[in-house]
This record gives sequence, structure tokens and C-alpha cells, in this order.
Amino acid sequence: MVNDEVVVTPWEVKGDIDYDKLVRDFGTQKIGDEIISKIEQIAGEVHPLIKRKIFFSHRDLDWLLSEYEKGNKFFLYTGRGPSGDTHLGHLVSWILTKWFQDKFGAELWFQMTDDEKFYFKDGLTAEFTNRMAYENALDVIALGFDEKKTFIFSDFDYAKTLYPQAAKVAKKLTFSTARAVFGFNESSNVGQIFFTSMQSVPAFLPSIKEGKNIPCLIPHAIDQDPHFRVCRDILPKLGYYKPAAIHSMFLPGLKQGGKMSSSIMDSAIFTTDTGEQIEKKVKNAFTGGKSTAEEQRKTGANPDICSVYNYYFILFMWDDNELGDLRKRCLCGEILCGDCKKILENKIKKFLNDHQKKREEAKKRLDKFILRD
Amino acid sequence: MVNDEVVVTPWEVKGDIDYDKLVRDFGTQKIGDEIISKIEQIAGEVHPLIKRKIFFSHRDLDWLLSEYEKGNKFFLYTGRGPSGDTHLGHLVSWILTKWFQDKFGAELWFQMTDDEKFYFKDGLTAEFTNRMAYENALDVIALGFDEKKTFIFSDFDYAKTLYPQAAKVAKKLTFSTARAVFGFNESSNVGQIFFTSMQSVPAFLPSIKEGKNIPCLIPHAIDQDPHFRVCRDILPKLGYYKPAAIHSMFLPGLKQGGKMSSSIMDSAIFTTDTGEQIEKKVKNAFTGGKSTAEEQRKTGANPDICSVYNYYFILFMWDDNELGDLRKRCLCGEILCGDCKKILENKIKKFLNDHQKKREEAKKRLDKFILRD
Repeated sequence: MVNDEVVVTPWEVKGDIDYDKLVRDFGTQKIGDEIISKIEQIAGEVHPLIKRKIFFSHRDLDWLLSEYEKGNKFFLYTGRGPSGDTHLGHLVSWILTKWFQDKFGAELWFQMTDDEKFYFKDGLTAEFTNRMAYENALDVIALGFDEKKTFIFSDFDYAKTLYPQAAKVAKKLTFSTARAVFGFNESSNVGQIFFTSMQSVPAFLPSIKEGKNIPCLIPHAIDQDPHFRVCRDILPKLGYYKPAAIHSMFLPGLKQGGKMSSSIMDSAIFTTDTGEQIEKKVKNAFTGGKSTAEEQRKTGANPDICSVYNYYFILFMWDDNELGDLRKRCLCGEILCGDCKKILENKIKKFLNDHQKKREEAKKRLDKFILRD
Repeated sequence: MVNDEVVVTPWEVKGDIDYDKLVRDFGTQKIGDEIISKIEQIAGEVHPLIKRKIFFSHRDLDWLLSEYEKGNKFFLYTGRGPSGDTHLGHLVSWILTKWFQDKFGAELWFQMTDDEKFYFKDGLTAEFTNRMAYENALDVIALGFDEKKTFIFSDFDYAKTLYPQAAKVAKKLTFSTARAVFGFNESSNVGQIFFTSMQSVPAFLPSIKEGKNIPCLIPHAIDQDPHFRVCRDILPKLGYYKPAAIHSMFLPGLKQGGKMSSSIMDSAIFTTDTGEQIEKKVKNAFTGGKSTAEEQRKTGANPDICSVYNYYFILFMWDDNELGDLRKRCLCGEILCGDCKKILENKIKKFLNDHQKKREEAKKRLDKFILRD
């Protein structure tokens, strides 16, 4: 795969991504040892997603932690563009978000941008994206968020609250800036141009509700950074703090390159997949294996280009010793791809079996989490 | 006054307006004798605002009337950008709208575009335009609209209903079209670019609520036509009728040229003005009089450039004989401007005295008219 087709925007991610370059291009800060120590000091531990630098970058996280130490608690804000079923890639940010909620006692404001997906995806109706908002909410709830501290809302259904605040952002955002950040053109629709104003609102809505400025931390995949650059630029003009952010890499698809995507056949495992589907997708996954078992036993395989290894690294093997051992066995040809895939398949099945049960239970508790006007 | 600075946009109207040219430029239809007869045939009379062609232009009014004759009733939609107090110029469309409600038994959907005025007027806060929406609503109610058939709503406060529908319009409207129609530039804010989507919604909202397509008539001042050109272009793509419209000239200010405007000192009479304010403004009004009383008695004055005469023509002397008589006396120098102004002053005082009483009573009935989510 050549490296000359790398795209990272809120609407498209493709190619071999150089995350160090993204940090430079986007002007964010790398997650370094110092900030990891600071987190450990406050929380008593560090989540593997941070320790492994899957969350590799941030904005103002150091400031947010200092404020926390001074007793100025923060709230969490993240979201989902409900264009279809939830897949494992979406869970990465949400799992870390839950960890922050648990360790820092933070409220979570979770935005379902059904308007965004309607504006940006030609084939989708507003009714469909709105319905998916509530389907996807079940996956959020299934992860175990605290129902007293977690508020989920759809842009369409919470518009009476969101739109008047979005208007205040919109008034401060010129077309020229929006185009520079998002690359709009003549055929962009006016909803697309307006939309980022809606995505800014949850970063200051709790401050409005409480009547005082509250710091905000946004865990999100790095592709959404342009929205929050705009947000950080405008919020101080409205009298609010700039939100802090912590940025994740993408969970790669089971195919070669890019992020896990619903639009590439069999590259994504959905939270609603059956055992049979999981088995098939993992079996067909791209690995760093050799063409024959014999060759692989002799020369070993390459975990660094392997989607199966990536799955272990990011979501399914958080024990460093266990992962180190597997890596060694892969490198020296002790384990073949078929066996390795079988282990992953079982781990995913176990995880999703449990998740699907909780997702089913979440249907009864949905209303406790949803904000509506 | 030279004629080379004529501007007619939804946000600015200035210069000597050639209404025939507007009809050609905007591509509307002139109100002709045929359509006036048709209205008379159905309603039993024709309102002076139509007979005098103050409502001088339309789109698809002939179609709307044919539908009405077939038993397919229409609803009315008009609105107000609540940037400040209501002045007499705003009442022109509303008075005709009320006449249509009375004669055709039509519902009225009245939109207060507090978002628009916030987006387009630098100095105004969202809280202010929202508050003015309800102040201005009192003037609407004071005109006597039927509380069972009249629905007034602010864009901010009715956003849960309006925004998801506006999104459907927005998705069909490219930046390129919006810029061509409204002349946006690099420094336009993204709220301005989105806004027309909100203004389209009331033209089909009753059709959604009733679950069937209902024709819509929009009485409005001609400067708002660009919004409804966009609306008429998009609604059929969403499965609705194009709204019909009937367009008024502007009530000129009491100064020379342009429309009555809150931003030109003493050019506008507000519905909340005191007797003293009315007296002062009318006294200072621009007329077609001569420099001395003696000259005017000899050569007569010019009603065609006179703001006082315009007030009679548009709002305060609907009896043709009475107006014809006054015109004659003006032309031959029989009446001087001071006396003529005194008559207008008394008419305005009488009208506003009555209006202000009804406006006060409207405060108690406001909730019966307001739609909120």
C-alpha cells in the first residue's frame, strides 16, 4: 500500500496514518510520560488505552488535571454520528470515557449527531439517523455508564435546547473560517456549513445549566479535531473555557489500512453481530502472516501490520505480559495465524455475548439516560 | 435624490424603488385586473391594499384561488424579524393577512425569526430578539386575528419542531445557490447561510401536521422574496406544494425615499409611540409642498412625492372618494401641508390609541396564540 493517499477529516479517514504527523499538522500535544504520571497520581492507575498511547494526543489535558487538583471538577463530552450500527471501533473512545467517569466522578454529556449524518450522507433520511441515535445509545448504556451522571441526546430531539446555543456559536463563525477548516465547496449544503455550531454546544451547555464555568474534557478520535478547533476558538468569545480533549487513533478495520468502517464490507465487527458473523470476519482478517505455514514456522510473522494483533493491542489484550508473550510467539513463528485468529474470535464472542445482554437490558433503562426538550 | 442607489434585499431596502423593475428582476407576476376580479368573486369584496396595488405582485395566487374554488383550502404564513418595536410599516402585510383569514377562513402560521435578527444584526443578543418576538406578537394579536386559527412561534422557542424540518431544506440547498440568491461573502456567518432553511419550514409545517398537502399563501413585503424563491425551489423536492405569495410595496418612511425603517431617526412611527411622538414625527415629515404658503396656494403641491400622502394612500384613507378629493385639493393648492399633516396626525393617533388598548389586552391572551415545543 502506498502512503500517498492519506485523508483524515471528520467525514473520511483513509490510508496509512502517520499519527506523529497528525499531531504536528493539527497542532495538538502528544501524550507524554509526564501527563501519564499525573493521571496515575490522581486516579491511582492509568487505563491501558492511555498507557499504550492509543489515546496518543491531547489539548489542554494538563490544564484540566491541574484544575481538577484545585477542586475544579470537569465534565465529559463525547458523541456519535448515528449513521448505522455501532461497531467495535466506536467503543474505544466510549470505554475510556467511562473510565474517566469512574475515576473522576465526572458527568457525561453524550451527543448523537443525527443531524450531521443526515447532512453528510446522501442516502440517509433524517428519520433513519434519528432512529439510529437511539439504537446506538443502547451500546453506550451497555458499557455501564452511571445513569445519574450520563445524559444522552439527539440533536433533532434536543433542538429546542441546542439550536439557540448553536446560534451563538454560528454568529461567531465566518464562512471563510468554516471553509478553511472543513474544506467546503460550492456544492456543500448549508446544513453541513452550519453543523459544527451544533457540535460545539455540549462543550458549554453544562456551564449554562449550572450558571458557572465548568471545565470540559472531550475524549474523541482524532478525525473530529477540526470541529473542536473551531469550538476552542469560539468558546472564549462567549465567555466559556476552551474544552480540553484527548485523541485516540482509529481501531483499524480487519482489512488492510484505514479505520474500521461500516462502508467497507467485513472490515467492521458490529456490536449486534452474531457468532457466525464474527467467526467469518475474523477468519477473513488481514494478518502479517506468510504464504505457507511452513514458511511462517521458519521465519515468523509480522504483528506490526496485522489487524488481528491490532485488535489485541487496542481492545482485547490489555495485560502487557500476555500481549508481549503473544507477540514473541508470532515473531518467531510459534503461533500460526489460524490459531491466533481463533483466540481473538473467542475473545470477541465473549465480549459481545456479554455486551448484547447488557444492550438488551439497556432498552428498559433508555429513558433514564435520554434528555429531550 | 438620484436613482442609482436602489437596494432591495431581505436585509436592506433603500433608494427610489421601481416596482415594475422588481417584478421583472424577481420574476414575479403583477397583480392584474383579472386576479382582482377573481378575488372579488370569491370574497365578495377586494381589500383596498389589493385594489390600490400596494400588494402589487404575486406568485401562483391564481393557482391558489383555483384550488380554493375546488374546495382545497389554503393556510396563511407570514412573519416578522423581531429586531425592535413594531412600526406601522410592519402592519401592512399583517392587515391584509387578517383580511384573508376573515374572508377565506384560513389558519395563520406566524413565524418570529428571532434567530435571523440575531444572525444578521451585529449589536443584538439572542435574548433581546427572543424577547422582542413576544413584544411584536402583541401587535399581531391586537389586529384581531382569530385565536383558534392563529399560531405564533419563535424560531428559538419552537426549534424542536422547526430545526429537524429545516434540516431537510438545508440538505437540498447548496452554498452556491444560497450565495447566488443572498449574496453571501467570506465574512458571512454560518448562521446567516443556514437561516433561510428555517424560514422555509412554516410553508409546509401544516402539511406535515395534517398529514396531507395543503396550499400555502404568504403575504409579505417584496424584499423577502429571495427566501421564498429558495423555498419554492426546494419544497417540491420534499413532496410539498410550492407556496403562493402576494407581495407588498413598502410603507415609505416619513423622510424622503426608502422604506419605513427603525434605523432612520423619526422615519418610523412605532405602535407604542405616544401622542407627542406622533405629533413630532408627522410635523417633521417630508412632503411635496412648496417653500412658501403663498407659492403653494398659487401653484399647488405634489402628492406623488409626499410621505404624508403615501400614508393616506396605503393605510389611512381607504375611501377612494375621500382620497381623490384630498389629492385634488393638494394639487390645486387648496390645502396646505400643515393642515394636511394635522389630519394625518389625528388619524394615526386614533388608530394607535385603539391599537394600544388592544395590545394591552393581548398580553392576557398571548399564551393562546403561542406555539412552544
